[in-house]
Amino acid sequence: MTKQLRIGMIGYGFMGRAHTNGYKRVGDFFPELEYRPVLKAACARNADNIKAFADQWGYESTETDWRKLVERDDIDAVDICVPNNLHKEIALACAANKKMVLCEKPLSMTVAEGEEMCQAIEKAGVANTVWYNYRRVPAVTLARKLIDEGKLGRIFHYRANFLQDWTISSDLPQGGQALWRLDVAAAGSGVTGDLLAHCIDTAIWLNGSISDVNAMTETFIKERQHTLTGKVEKVGIDDACAFLCHFENGSLGLFESTRYARGHKALYTFEINGEKASIKWDLHDLHRLEYFDHGDEGQVRGWRSIHVTDGEHPYMDKWWVPGLQIGYEHSFVHHVADFLKSLEKGEPCEPTFRSALETQKVCEAVLTSAKERAWQNVG
Amino acid sequence: MTKQLRIGMIGYGFMGRAHTNGYKRVGDFFPELEYRPVLKAACARNADNIKAFADQWGYESTETDWRKLVERDDIDAVDICVPNNLHKEIALACAANKKMVLCEKPLSMTVAEGEEMCQAIEKAGVANTVWYNYRRVPAVTLARKLIDEGKLGRIFHYRANFLQDWTISSDLPQGGQALWRLDVAAAGSGVTGDLLAHCIDTAIWLNGSISDVNAMTETFIKERQHTLTGKVEKVGIDDACAFLCHFENGSLGLFESTRYARGHKALYTFEINGEKASIKWDLHDLHRLEYFDHGDEGQVRGWRSIHVTDGEHPYMDKWWVPGLQIGYEHSFVHHVADFLKSLEKGEPCEPTFRSALETQKVCEAVLTSAKERAWQNVG
Amino acid sequence: MTKQLRIGMIGYGFMGRAHTNGYKRVGDFFPELEYRPVLKAACARNADNIKAFADQWGYESTETDWRKLVERDDIDAVDICVPNNLHKEIALACAANKKMVLCEKPLSMTVAEGEEMCQAIEKAGVANTVWYNYRRVPAVTLARKLIDEGKLGRIFHYRANFLQDWTISSDLPQGGQALWRLDVAAAGSGVTGDLLAHCIDTAIWLNGSISDVNAMTETFIKERQHTLTGKVEKVGIDDACAFLCHFENGSLGLFESTRYARGHKALYTFEINGEKASIKWDLHDLHRLEYFDHGDEGQVRGWRSIHVTDGEHPYMDKWWVPGLQIGYEHSFVHHVADFLKSLEKGEPCEPTFRSALETQKVCEAVLTSAKERAWQNVG
Amino acid sequence: MTKQLRIGMIGYGFMGRAHTNGYKRVGDFFPELEYRPVLKAACARNADNIKAFADQWGYESTETDWRKLVERDDIDAVDICVPNNLHKEIALACAANKKMVLCEKPLSMTVAEGEEMCQAIEKAGVANTVWYNYRRVPAVTLARKLIDEGKLGRIFHYRANFLQDWTISSDLPQGGQALWRLDVAAAGSGVTGDLLAHCIDTAIWLNGSISDVNAMTETFIKERQHTLTGKVEKVGIDDACAFLCHFENGSLGLFESTRYARGHKALYTFEINGEKASIKWDLHDLHRLEYFDHGDEGQVRGWRSIHVTDGEHPYMDKWWVPGLQIGYEHSFVHHVADFLKSLEKGEPCEPTFRSALETQKVCEAVLTSAKERAWQNVG
Repeated sequence: MTKQLRIGMIGYGFMGRAHTNGYKRVGDFFPELEYRPVLKAACARNADNIKAFADQWGYESTETDWRKLVERDDIDAVDICVPNNLHKEIALACAANKKMVLCEKPLSMTVAEGEEMCQAIEKAGVANTVWYNYRRVPAVTLARKLIDEGKLGRIFHYRANFLQDWTISSDLPQGGQALWRLDVAAAGSGVTGDLLAHCIDTAIWLNGSISDVNAMTETFIKERQHTLTGKVEKVGIDDACAFLCHFENGSLGLFESTRYARGHKALYTFEINGEKASIKWDLHDLHRLEYFDHGDEGQVRGWRSIHVTDGEHPYMDKWWVPGLQIGYEHSFVHHVADFLKSLEKGEPCEPTFRSALETQKVCEAVLTSAKERAWQNVG
Repeated sequence: MTKQLRIGMIGYGFMGRAHTNGYKRVGDFFPELEYRPVLKAACARNADNIKAFADQWGYESTETDWRKLVERDDIDAVDICVPNNLHKEIALACAANKKMVLCEKPLSMTVAEGEEMCQAIEKAGVANTVWYNYRRVPAVTLARKLIDEGKLGRIFHYRANFLQDWTISSDLPQGGQALWRLDVAAAGSGVTGDLLAHCIDTAIWLNGSISDVNAMTETFIKERQHTLTGKVEKVGIDDACAFLCHFENGSLGLFESTRYARGHKALYTFEINGEKASIKWDLHDLHRLEYFDHGDEGQVRGWRSIHVTDGEHPYMDKWWVPGLQIGYEHSFVHHVADFLKSLEKGEPCEPTFRSALETQKVCEAVLTSAKERAWQNVG
Repeated sequence: MTKQLRIGMIGYGFMGRAHTNGYKRVGDFFPELEYRPVLKAACARNADNIKAFADQWGYESTETDWRKLVERDDIDAVDICVPNNLHKEIALACAANKKMVLCEKPLSMTVAEGEEMCQAIEKAGVANTVWYNYRRVPAVTLARKLIDEGKLGRIFHYRANFLQDWTISSDLPQGGQALWRLDVAAAGSGVTGDLLAHCIDTAIWLNGSISDVNAMTETFIKERQHTLTGKVEKVGIDDACAFLCHFENGSLGLFESTRYARGHKALYTFEINGEKASIKWDLHDLHRLEYFDHGDEGQVRGWRSIHVTDGEHPYMDKWWVPGLQIGYEHSFVHHVADFLKSLEKGEPCEPTFRSALETQKVCEAVLTSAKERAWQNVG
Repeated sequence: MTKQLRIGMIGYGFMGRAHTNGYKRVGDFFPELEYRPVLKAACARNADNIKAFADQWGYESTETDWRKLVERDDIDAVDICVPNNLHKEIALACAANKKMVLCEKPLSMTVAEGEEMCQAIEKAGVANTVWYNYRRVPAVTLARKLIDEGKLGRIFHYRANFLQDWTISSDLPQGGQALWRLDVAAAGSGVTGDLLAHCIDTAIWLNGSISDVNAMTETFIKERQHTLTGKVEKVGIDDACAFLCHFENGSLGLFESTRYARGHKALYTFEINGEKASIKWDLHDLHRLEYFDHGDEGQVRGWRSIHVTDGEHPYMDKWWVPGLQIGYEHSFVHHVADFLKSLEKGEPCEPTFRSALETQKVCEAVLTSAKERAWQNVG
């Protein structure tokens, strides 16, 4: 017996498309699941735009006021795909209306906001998750599995970076529908919340909590025209951010993110060095995991490039045959599948709001550290 | 005004799933198309199996006799996803019933069969295409674009291989639903029709016709248990095949395929060396194209690894943002999109049956050459 | 007319061999040089060991007291290849005896020592250089050339790391002939002076001065048996060190070094992101330089892997033919060649003691920052 | 007690330099050897040129008539580094004068010539070897070791190619000192003897004898100016050659070579697919060996990139420390070392003339097959 999970989507940008695709494909590839998403309603302020989006993707109806959508009886779960400055208010309304929430990352503008959101959601007792999708790239999931199996041993080092190059031109404006990520009022921060948040979520998941951080940030282009006002305004976000940290397991961390690394479109990489083995991953070739096992016979020891497309690899029995890679959007399909499974089992779907709050705390400590030019404890 | 293209699918294996996924996703990502596929009916001999498939993927009805499906008035196009030995009969029935046909590759068991199919289809005047999907991997499409722009100049060399390793174990049986590719009665040939056919289709598309070939084949494991009879029977397919050839443009070709290349799951690669530039591609990292431009300044000349994920790359404006890769199945979505577009325009959708017949001729020349240990002209 | 440069070598370890090989090969590959090294004398405390070394490599004589060697009339230049704690005293004696000095890196134990050495050497007016050999790996020299030509434009980011894994075992002792690098009394510091010093020298050479730093260090294994005393003693060196920094040109720097990165034997990499282009290099494939030029046509833009073996690449006209790589030790041959050329021209051979002192200042600021957990200005 | 091996070098081109460097370095890195090469005399027709070469490299004397050199009492071993058409006559003279011979590859112009050379040398009983240097690249030697240890199991496939791009311009002349490799009268053949001979020697060494071949050759540029005559003359060499073959162990072979593969300077690669494991190598990164072991645990199975620089790798204990690569010319140092060791032991130094004759037989069968467009048995 299939149960419906009626989705109300708020937003229709890049993430709105990626999540929707996840809802639409999950049934084809995870037919064993009890729940099936139904695209009930999509919402945005601009009636024409949201109508076009709903038509293209097959949402049954549209709204132009998100409060209405949240209050609709025929909606089970709300997907928050709007700029960061709107997350809190919508999440609180969802809690008040007992809707499940799937919230785009980062969770919130600040830790205080996030804490308020967690408390409301937890009090309401609704299922919730935050879209840190990279956990469910099969190669990344495999990394976690190898760590859980003890293959790496004691961890010495964790390093990650997320490098892009799309804001180098000073002609690029800030703000508005397309470029809200450059507008501090909408985004809260720059690369820290947008990109490092991903790195931090993965790091905590793979390597445990971060205890203290020491960061520097930079804004290379100080002023940009604002799309909404038409005026040249100060840029409030961080264009680049790097930080040192300690993990609670005693390992050292090194993180960097920027939108000024010419040649990298979306190079998210991490590497973990353990006593017995090391692993590396790179979003630009997300279907591979590099693995070095010191236990291999000396003369044939080397980094292994694992093509993560076999049936025994996480999630890959759902797709094609060995050797045939999947892409970026599949991580969202997996996230949806795991969310649906968590409903069946009555268990939380990680990362929950509470888990995502930990990432928020690290982000905030990073920004504070950069501002105060000093080490900062997390939490 | 959207028009429906009502699909009748025959078969439900790996390709049945890949094609169906193409039909289901094309509207989400190519909303501008006039035609939309409708999953009208799926067909297979086993009623339970096809029912389960239809339920999972959303086909409206099922059939257990393909003749019935082909004759149904509510079907516009038939998708032939069954073993090679059934292609001809179904295609001829489609022609007789004026159905469009989308036929899985290779076109036929023999050139004679293929010629008969082409004539019937062409006489019926129905839209037709053969699923040589790799033409529509964006990196491969880009390769064609670069060649068309004259970037390579005179071509000297074309080399391709398709290497797998899944039949090395002698315990693997032949024949039946899962392993018909090992049964010469169902498949016609081994790696030549299954894998080299892909390499040849791409090669002809990128580099023009092949004039003569010189091949060797090998069957490493001479006998395998047959799934249907339960007896150990002679293996009639080629486990491996390699051939030398000349292209009509004067360049030299070298092709190889095997299912005994330990370490390669589905390594389809090609490389083209031109006077001015060279290109290389590898299915294991299908989102990249390697490009060497001799016109670059000498001290900084090198192979460029192009991450084919920008909006200006073929098909990629339809998907995500730069840096985020797509996967294997997207090539089928693109093929469906191009088929629908060809209906709008009233143009053929390449490769047509006629074009696919040219690949069939090369395959047949290859097998003849191997048998006779002599150069063989094509066609 | 060939002139002799009579070399007195102090030390006979890994670096003693590498430098000696440089002296012996330079004439074969740089025949146009006026000066030719002559291996006059080698010196070490152990008479048997230094005799064996001298016999193997062809030194004409040996000494067991470095003071005697420095005072010999038949020595023009002294090569200091001993642990760091002996550099100063020998260098001062060289200055007093008007000998040229080629000193192994890092220059000194402290900035104060280094300053004293610089003043003595400069007052004596003798030719001097410090063996930061990586500047003369052809791919690295090419990187500098590309920067000088303005190909990168404004620099945003510089990142470098030097990762090894040879001290992970807690059974490894510290101190003595083979393991003095683990003994703080002999080495002064751990990875900072041994490995990061290389990264810093290259960085300053390629990207200019570093203004301030913020570092963390770690000693993973707190106690090791000491080879000389036989007792388990506290480990005084840094096993790992990472730091953030600002360059005076406004770019951000990120550096890391460790001997606990399982899977990396000697992975020295750097990457520079400029407005117009980026470059990357990796010691594990030292004959390649990765280069991304944003000026390339969009559809064929990608990282170029330059095989730095053409005659037009730095130093490479001296060796074999295009496509044939050189190795690690060639950087020392190039350093010797440039030192000899500098004598001909009466110019300094970079890096001089004075230039190497700048690296020393960064190292010291890094160690102070780590100790005080605070940003530290350089110099 | 060190014994002298007095070398007489005939020729002073690229190979003359590479061999001489081998003689000069072997004592520094292989001090345990009983024999030491002494550069006694160098010979070439042009007195000025050979004088300059001898001065640069340290030969004690020169000759302008190779017969004189071969007859000198103070020469123990003659190194033949001249165009292929002179090999036979010199080798026969060496045999007559009881000189050891180190002959550049390929052994001879024809099998008949090679047979005559072998008989003469064997009758004289002098030590002999042919400079197929790639056997002694440590990664290639390691490949042989892994095969000998049974790590690959039954072999299915061997493929190799040697791709260059230096003769694409039609302005390049043929013949003379620098370009004799393009002149069929001096070289005997084009890429077959120059490049494929290397591939074949390695293949036979690693995978055993080749039983039959089927080849095609091409001369893309039909006429070039001849350096010696000044006239435009027909080009007699093969610009490109590819062939299929069977090995006696039942595996299939595929070989290709060309000087028209834009983007490849000296890309010599081979790959061997065995039942249990596969290996790959590439001259452009000669210090690495790729290795895939099917015995690895499934989820972490992948191609390993072995950085062949550890002390336990062949020859590498003689050089630097793990992680630091050597280059092309080191293979010649190793060949000299093995030759000297063979003298100590009174054993042959492979490949001997007799072994090199087997490669010659394959080359000749390849050229015959191409000419006759038919399979050709070897030998």
